[in-house]
Amino acid sequence: MLIDQKTSAQLISVAHEMADAARAAILPFFRTSALDTENKLSEGFDPVTVADRAAEKAMRDVLAKHRPEDGIFGEEFGSSHGSTGLTWVLDPIDGTRGFISGTPTWGVLIAVSDETGPRLGIVDQPYIGERFFGGFGHAELTGPSGVMPLKTKETTELSEAILFTTFPEVGTPTERAAFERVAEVAKLTRYGMDCYAYALLAAGQADLVIEAGLNAYDIQGPIGVIEAAGGIVTDWDGNPAHDGGTALAAATPELHAKALAILRKS
Amino acid sequence: MLIDQKTSAQLISVAHEMADAARAAILPFFRTSALDTENKLSEGFDPVTVADRAAEKAMRDVLAKHRPEDGIFGEEFGSSHGSTGLTWVLDPIDGTRGFISGTPTWGVLIAVSDETGPRLGIVDQPYIGERFFGGFGHAELTGPSGVMPLKTKETTELSEAILFTTFPEVGTPTERAAFERVAEVAKLTRYGMDCYAYALLAAGQADLVIEAGLNAYDIQGPIGVIEAAGGIVTDWDGNPAHDGGTALAAATPELHAKALAILRKS
Repeated sequence: MLIDQKTSAQLISVAHEMADAARAAILPFFRTSALDTENKLSEGFDPVTVADRAAEKAMRDVLAKHRPEDGIFGEEFGSSHGSTGLTWVLDPIDGTRGFISGTPTWGVLIAVSDETGPRLGIVDQPYIGERFFGGFGHAELTGPSGVMPLKTKETTELSEAILFTTFPEVGTPTERAAFERVAEVAKLTRYGMDCYAYALLAAGQADLVIEAGLNAYDIQGPIGVIEAAGGIVTDWDGNPAHDGGTALAAATPELHAKALAILRKS
Repeated sequence: MLIDQKTSAQLISVAHEMADAARAAILPFFRTSALDTENKLSEGFDPVTVADRAAEKAMRDVLAKHRPEDGIFGEEFGSSHGSTGLTWVLDPIDGTRGFISGTPTWGVLIAVSDETGPRLGIVDQPYIGERFFGGFGHAELTGPSGVMPLKTKETTELSEAILFTTFPEVGTPTERAAFERVAEVAKLTRYGMDCYAYALLAAGQADLVIEAGLNAYDIQGPIGVIEAAGGIVTDWDGNPAHDGGTALAAATPELHAKALAILRKS
């Protein structure tokens, strides 16, 4: 849909206010010893914390105030349809396993999407105080070193690529084998960064992120940031990734095509 | 050796001055696009950056000024014997792979050791602005949330333990198999944190760190911090780990004994 400049400015402002609210809601719970966790999946390990719910509630309060007609799809409290054609897609704490183990690699994910996918994305790391923003012609990082533009690298060869994933933790055996075929030819493979990996790709530090088993709210914020920074994100078939499933994020179209060819063959 | 209070206070002060100097030397090079890297091992991937050398030089300058009679063992510029019985063990950037991929999980490692091992340790993360310090009765974290004491968790059961390692990247196939036996019974396993994993153990966030293929300068800083915070570090045979090789760090002696039993059996 067409979004005028006044609306896009408001969306950007509201998104930052939401990220601020989420930070304030989450930080008191980070690295405390008595996290109120529960298992959402009996067979897996996907704890929900008090912080998770408090942060989504805080973001929904901001939307109720400024954008009550928009739709919302949040990890914790489900979806509501709006009347504007825009939906806010929220993951208050992406990387809960990182969160409960104290690593500063989890993040607050926010996206504003229309029928084509994310138009704006935020990946926020509250403990470090880093916010990766992309949308409407802007892509920037605000963090400990100040404000700087986000721009993906120009890497076009797999042999020069730094690859990130949450594997070996996520994915089916078939998906893992496909990932490993790319890892075999990449320059360096790194694990365990949660959503922070996508932020590093947008910041020109990593070249590829390959994941599977995603929900829409896991990937829409990163898509918004990465596309605004010049990168490309699809699923492992080359189709839009914003509904979840598999994801292949790359710094350049050339690198994306080479990784996609390997994933497809697998 | 016996270290009097005046000397220990000076050692603490000098260690912080060294960590400050290393931060200043490294940060201008973090997340820049033109890192001057070279491969130390032709078959592996162990880049040395300009920052690595600049930081060790900066730390050595501090020692030349305040503690010229102490020995030094540094990753970049080798070892020199001293006359005091104390040796500074330095890794200016532990986790160079993390460094070149932009993750804030690398660290500056500093230890002061006598014939028994580390008496003081620092793990410093310059980008986040976090310093984990332990030694001479003190153990504290200074970071984005202020200053707080470091204290390991009270976990005694493997089924409740959060386990960190740099595996699957490091270690022989036999070592990897031994690690995986522990991972199978742990509550959660996380990868890719470099030296930051040891800092999280000292901070009461993680319960176990298991690694192999270490050099003395990779582990002495962490040992100093973890022991001061109430934890225990040995090699996989239960012997002192400060000369490098394998390492098993645990929050409690009970947990350490249980993990050690599995590693020994393997």
